[in-house]
Amino acid sequence: MSDTRLLAIDWGTSSARVYELDARGVVVRERRAALGIQRITDGRFADALATLCGDALSQAVPVLACGMIGSRQGWVEAPYCDCPAGIDAIAGALTAVPGTALLIAPGLMVRDAAGVADVMRGEETQILGALPDRPVDQSLYVLPGTHSKWAIAGAEGILTFTTFMTGELYAVLRDHSILGRLAVAGVDNGAFDRGVRMSLREQAALTHDLFSARTLPLTSELASEGVGDYLSGLLVGAEISAARAWAAGNSAAAAGVTLVGEAALCERYRRALTIAGVETVQGSPVAAARGLWRIAQHAGMLPS
Amino acid sequence: MSDTRLLAIDWGTSSARVYELDARGVVVRERRAALGIQRITDGRFADALATLCGDALSQAVPVLACGMIGSRQGWVEAPYCDCPAGIDAIAGALTAVPGTALLIAPGLMVRDAAGVADVMRGEETQILGALPDRPVDQSLYVLPGTHSKWAIAGAEGILTFTTFMTGELYAVLRDHSILGRLAVAGVDNGAFDRGVRMSLREQAALTHDLFSARTLPLTSELASEGVGDYLSGLLVGAEISAARAWAAGNSAAAAGVTLVGEAALCERYRRALTIAGVETVQGSPVAAARGLWRIAQHAGMLPS
Repeated sequence: MSDTRLLAIDWGTSSARVYELDARGVVVRERRAALGIQRITDGRFADALATLCGDALSQAVPVLACGMIGSRQGWVEAPYCDCPAGIDAIAGALTAVPGTALLIAPGLMVRDAAGVADVMRGEETQILGALPDRPVDQSLYVLPGTHSKWAIAGAEGILTFTTFMTGELYAVLRDHSILGRLAVAGVDNGAFDRGVRMSLREQAALTHDLFSARTLPLTSELASEGVGDYLSGLLVGAEISAARAWAAGNSAAAAGVTLVGEAALCERYRRALTIAGVETVQGSPVAAARGLWRIAQHAGMLPS
Repeated sequence: MSDTRLLAIDWGTSSARVYELDARGVVVRERRAALGIQRITDGRFADALATLCGDALSQAVPVLACGMIGSRQGWVEAPYCDCPAGIDAIAGALTAVPGTALLIAPGLMVRDAAGVADVMRGEETQILGALPDRPVDQSLYVLPGTHSKWAIAGAEGILTFTTFMTGELYAVLRDHSILGRLAVAGVDNGAFDRGVRMSLREQAALTHDLFSARTLPLTSELASEGVGDYLSGLLVGAEISAARAWAAGNSAAAAGVTLVGEAALCERYRRALTIAGVETVQGSPVAAARGLWRIAQHAGMLPS
């Protein structure tokens, strides 16, 4: 008999990651597949689920997913929970996929200071997984990515969050703008740091400062091999600067943050945050699995 | 005999505009061709010049060009003049193209508050052309475009300027980002105004606010037909907000500006500037021709 007690799936836009957890909530098997919702054609989600889970699916083990699989473009739409949201609220709002054992965790929605909605799908589960067993205070969680998220979370769950389009801006500028055309492949941490510092200064103005990724190589003050990292630094620096103002507006101290996500990207943010004087802690590399385990516990999906 | 006394060419990246001016400096003929420097292959600039000028070239009329034709990627590089730059400095720095009657006006370079170079090529000539005959005070000139320029200019010429990558950011986000994928073709001035207001508020943070072009349609608070104009408004608003801070840092009153450029784009900026409480005047539609005429006069290229 298998030792798997929960099949947990972090099911995103481009890929899916499947975790099998044992009775103690420990990940005993993990695999990744290029079966993100954008790559599934003709609504063949059931086939994708079978491929992702393999034999485990036939063992009457509960299956819980988070991420874009619950979006309007996914399999079945799981409505957003409003923030602040504790784990009980999230566990109480799972959406079942008819004809399968699969349950989908909801995303979260919050209104920013301008009254505009902000959303996340999947990151809420990673934050729940990154929380300590007994959180004492509210603290800051940073999830770098295409759409970077900053969240304030603690004992009561997730209080609020905000999104920055840093990764997407980098990708479109790198691949499609005049700045990208100037860039030559290369790694230049010094150029990254310089971009971060540029965006952290008080008079920083991103749509102007981006042009410096064109003029610095023109005047031979930046090597073409550094343009990509300099551009990345400008964007990450602008994110940190705006996120600090956001944290202050939400009465959160921004002296330290927990980074959650892919190791290389978190390391890049750690560099930038250090320049900004912000201490960082690296969160669990299996935060999504841990978050799904906690949600499943609270939803009564696991034998107690 | 032809009445043409100067062939003036505004020779940019994607297109070129040729003006024939008579003895009074009035444009008597004007044509446009898709012969920008990016479209000229194998260095066939001489052929392009012949095509652009036609018969006029054989009449021993002086020929003066401005714009990217003088860049490193152009025909012959015309070094940048440092700002502040009066018309005499610009007229004294023309670069001759060997074997032709063509002279190329220099671009301008300035250092921003962070010590980083900013550059323009072609806009300096439009600004000189947009200046009144006897400028009294320094005032603000705005040239919207792929790389929008704001300049402070007056009797002594061009004091300083700054670049915003507004047009390029709009194009890459519209064509290559998730925001563009959400957009449906349409014109929505209300959505544009809303984007402008969003970026003009005190806590605006562009890389966060851009995400509202995704969430507002998601929550049915913005029609898909409005996403493109809303995005444009966010970017133009961010430009105006940053440009105001820049103007204040250069002791320039930003209560009124002269807009120079293509009519539809200037109208869009007029809308946005009106929301920001800034009065606008539309500059000459043939500012480049007028600027080239003035430079030619100061360079002694015209019979006095």
